[in-house]
Amino acid sequence: MTDVFSEFKEHSIAEFFKKNRQMLGFSGKTRSLTTIIHELVTNSLDASEEERILPEIHVKIEELDKEEGRYKIYVNDNGSGIPEKHLGKAMAMMLAGTKFHRFVQQRGQQGIGAAGVTMYAQLTTGKEVHLVSGYKGDKLECDISIDFKTNKPIIKNIKKEKTDWHGLSYEAEVSDVKYDKSTYGVYEYLKRTAIANPHTQILLTEPDGTEQLFPRSIDIIPPKPKEVQPHPLGITTSDLIDFAHHDKDNSTLRQFLQSNFSRLSSSKVQELDEICPDIDFKKAPGKLEWRDAEKLVKAFQEVKWIAPSIEGIHPIGEKQIEKSMINILNPEFIEVVERKPAIFRGGIPFIVEVGLAYGGDAGRAVADRYSNDIMRFANRAPLLFDGGGCAITEAVKNVEWKRYSLRKFDEEPISVLVNISSVHIPYTGAGKQAISNEKEMVEEIRNALMEAARKLKKHLHGKIRDKERKARKKAVEKYVEQLSQDLADLAEYKKPEVLKENLSKLVEEKYIG
Amino acid sequence: MTDVFSEFKEHSIAEFFKKNRQMLGFSGKTRSLTTIIHELVTNSLDASEEERILPEIHVKIEELDKEEGRYKIYVNDNGSGIPEKHLGKAMAMMLAGTKFHRFVQQRGQQGIGAAGVTMYAQLTTGKEVHLVSGYKGDKLECDISIDFKTNKPIIKNIKKEKTDWHGLSYEAEVSDVKYDKSTYGVYEYLKRTAIANPHTQILLTEPDGTEQLFPRSIDIIPPKPKEVQPHPLGITTSDLIDFAHHDKDNSTLRQFLQSNFSRLSSSKVQELDEICPDIDFKKAPGKLEWRDAEKLVKAFQEVKWIAPSIEGIHPIGEKQIEKSMINILNPEFIEVVERKPAIFRGGIPFIVEVGLAYGGDAGRAVADRYSNDIMRFANRAPLLFDGGGCAITEAVKNVEWKRYSLRKFDEEPISVLVNISSVHIPYTGAGKQAISNEKEMVEEIRNALMEAARKLKKHLHGKIRDKERKARKKAVEKYVEQLSQDLADLAEYKKPEVLKENLSKLVEEKYIG
Repeated sequence: MTDVFSEFKEHSIAEFFKKNRQMLGFSGKTRSLTTIIHELVTNSLDASEEERILPEIHVKIEELDKEEGRYKIYVNDNGSGIPEKHLGKAMAMMLAGTKFHRFVQQRGQQGIGAAGVTMYAQLTTGKEVHLVSGYKGDKLECDISIDFKTNKPIIKNIKKEKTDWHGLSYEAEVSDVKYDKSTYGVYEYLKRTAIANPHTQILLTEPDGTEQLFPRSIDIIPPKPKEVQPHPLGITTSDLIDFAHHDKDNSTLRQFLQSNFSRLSSSKVQELDEICPDIDFKKAPGKLEWRDAEKLVKAFQEVKWIAPSIEGIHPIGEKQIEKSMINILNPEFIEVVERKPAIFRGGIPFIVEVGLAYGGDAGRAVADRYSNDIMRFANRAPLLFDGGGCAITEAVKNVEWKRYSLRKFDEEPISVLVNISSVHIPYTGAGKQAISNEKEMVEEIRNALMEAARKLKKHLHGKIRDKERKARKKAVEKYVEQLSQDLADLAEYKKPEVLKENLSKLVEEKYIG
Repeated sequence: MTDVFSEFKEHSIAEFFKKNRQMLGFSGKTRSLTTIIHELVTNSLDASEEERILPEIHVKIEELDKEEGRYKIYVNDNGSGIPEKHLGKAMAMMLAGTKFHRFVQQRGQQGIGAAGVTMYAQLTTGKEVHLVSGYKGDKLECDISIDFKTNKPIIKNIKKEKTDWHGLSYEAEVSDVKYDKSTYGVYEYLKRTAIANPHTQILLTEPDGTEQLFPRSIDIIPPKPKEVQPHPLGITTSDLIDFAHHDKDNSTLRQFLQSNFSRLSSSKVQELDEICPDIDFKKAPGKLEWRDAEKLVKAFQEVKWIAPSIEGIHPIGEKQIEKSMINILNPEFIEVVERKPAIFRGGIPFIVEVGLAYGGDAGRAVADRYSNDIMRFANRAPLLFDGGGCAITEAVKNVEWKRYSLRKFDEEPISVLVNISSVHIPYTGAGKQAISNEKEMVEEIRNALMEAARKLKKHLHGKIRDKERKARKKAVEKYVEQLSQDLADLAEYKKPEVLKENLSKLVEEKYIG
């Protein structure tokens, strides 16, 4: 009998996602292509914000074999490029990058995205991806793939030269995907990206050669994302231990606390000291034990804190959203609401923005009817899939739309945009398409929606009143002509046209003024 | 300006899941506890099947602090234990184990489960887990934790001695969980495990000390899971390249194909050779290039194959399911259907079993009503969560229950058991709680349900006819007494009791016979 333990093996994260690619969003032909574009475009946007560049992105999709679903994908940006030292890892090593560990608002979070695309190209066509990076005067061109066994990049055909150009160009051949113009496709994805990123210019070359330009509508670059310190109320015992044991700059627990957490001043340490008299705040942070860390986290709950700083959080902005939505939807009514910063899980700040557009090209025309259109965003990145389990969908469902004069909310010409900004978006899966139902988030989104809906209700009531007024006026006007004639006859008055003018004025004042 | 690339770091899979524990099923207090028990119990069951042992599992849950949700968890089994060399990795290294790479039907698949529980204990209480393993005469006791930075186990306090006992005992202290008797809790999970694994004895010690025994109802150990070769129709180009390049036993492509794939005989290689004349079947498998592999995979589609072997697949069995369901539900009607093996994604075989119980304790009593109860299983492991996106739920929804005399399917006293057996269950996420909507699977499950539902319809119609007959008989019988008396009087017949007897017989024959 062979021993089952002779089969004992260790596997890399790359092998894991190779076997479970659906967890990264690679399931279904349309979704797989959108996932590819999503990962590459969010990287481009993050990179340009880091470097304070107005992004110009070119996405080109070339059809090689329709039946097989084989396409060539190009994504080029004018960002900073990536230095040679990191290019391979950034593009072909899972869980490597600058994003995983920092408390900073970005679209990407986990350092899997681009490597996932490289993986998908390899798995479906066996081909390396082709990269060109222009970074600080150096141009680097090469072919990159993943060694799945080790999760390490394999780099080939390196060419180097000097250049003035900066940016990144990513070229991949993939199969088992599909380009279409459905609500889950690349076109819709880029349209929505443009709506939430009005400072970005995106050019899409479709498989049939058509060029779709989503022009920049505003010249303001969003602020450079800033790393923020965590707030004590958002910290678990395990986090606190981690931070303390990795600390190299402070010699005492007191100093460590003051210099690593937001709002944790020396007077707050004093308070903590009083709550936990048996903790030695002079000991080295590296020596913090679980029991003391647990006591500290409990003590955090008893202290009164100033709310978390929102320095690191940058919403799209009311004006930008309004401009974008008017630009694209040309609605008869629009209202944008930006809520004040709020907090979830005790200490993680976030900001909700909502745009509500009605009429014009808002909503979605379905045969001879309308259907509403819910556009979900997290840190300005569109979320197209898994809407069912998302906090945004949940909040939209929780609004009693009937109370806002929207009898059949599902069938109204209405577009709802919701964007959530935070240094930590709590996604439900590695595919990053739905936000988990955090109570405070759902509540904030709902409040924002209701605020906008109240304005819409006024507008709709105004429309009704207006209509009624016009109908009454019209009814009265019909008689003005005749009445002025009759009155003139009766009074033997010679100027019926003066009478008519005065009567018209009267009607105007009474029914319109 | 600091360069963002100075922040470039690599992370381990353990760090990834530490940050994204919800992906492993650790979200919500009740679900987190069920996930812990699920991972440990499925490991115990897999281990005992490997060694052909009738499993005895003891799960004990001790409440330490209700408010905080702090519990001590023990899971003991009588399996083979784990050798010292592998114990640390099996319990505290993600993606290490015997399951990830083998084509074999098991409950676990990815080598994350137990390490995930160890992670959860560390994250919520900072404590190592305590292990005792009895393996081939050696008893090993130790404390184990994960080094998240490296995804390597840390083993402490090792004690060794000789023993007669074999098995594994896992003890962990966790927090932020909750023991309850809801449909998502540990009790329900173990009850369902017992239903699908009638050869297993499970003893649960609840936090209040109550002992719940789920006794063994059958003494047949399921066959030892057998590793099977993949069928050519279930293979992608990328898989084929992988297999070929890792092959060490064959010197030619021809030999490699014949010895690595199910149903691929020498005459089939001949056919492939004729379809692909430009492929050199004498070259080393390690030299197989993508282009040729792609051609081979296409050629696989043109050859006529014998269906995949189902040697490695072991369903629960009709009799076992019936026995289990009768045992627990005591229904007035039961029907079990085991379908013939079918195939999804071209070449992966699976078997669907369905049990349908009606009346008795079937269904779920909700206040004064009933609600149906859908019990989902994959390779005998209960699936309690994420039912919305599961192929089983989808199939149940797709049946027109009204056609089977079930007017309000949602409110019937009905229990449906569905078990899917396969060497590869296509889960939608690492939490392994839902099966992706593979077309062929949904169809097979639906067919099985309809087959069982037809029998139920007959039973229900029989019940109605029975009821009507009894009502008629009762109505007629009311008059028999009086009628026999009246007839006797009329005919001046002296024995009305004889008349009554004959009349009763007549009624019996006409309305019941």
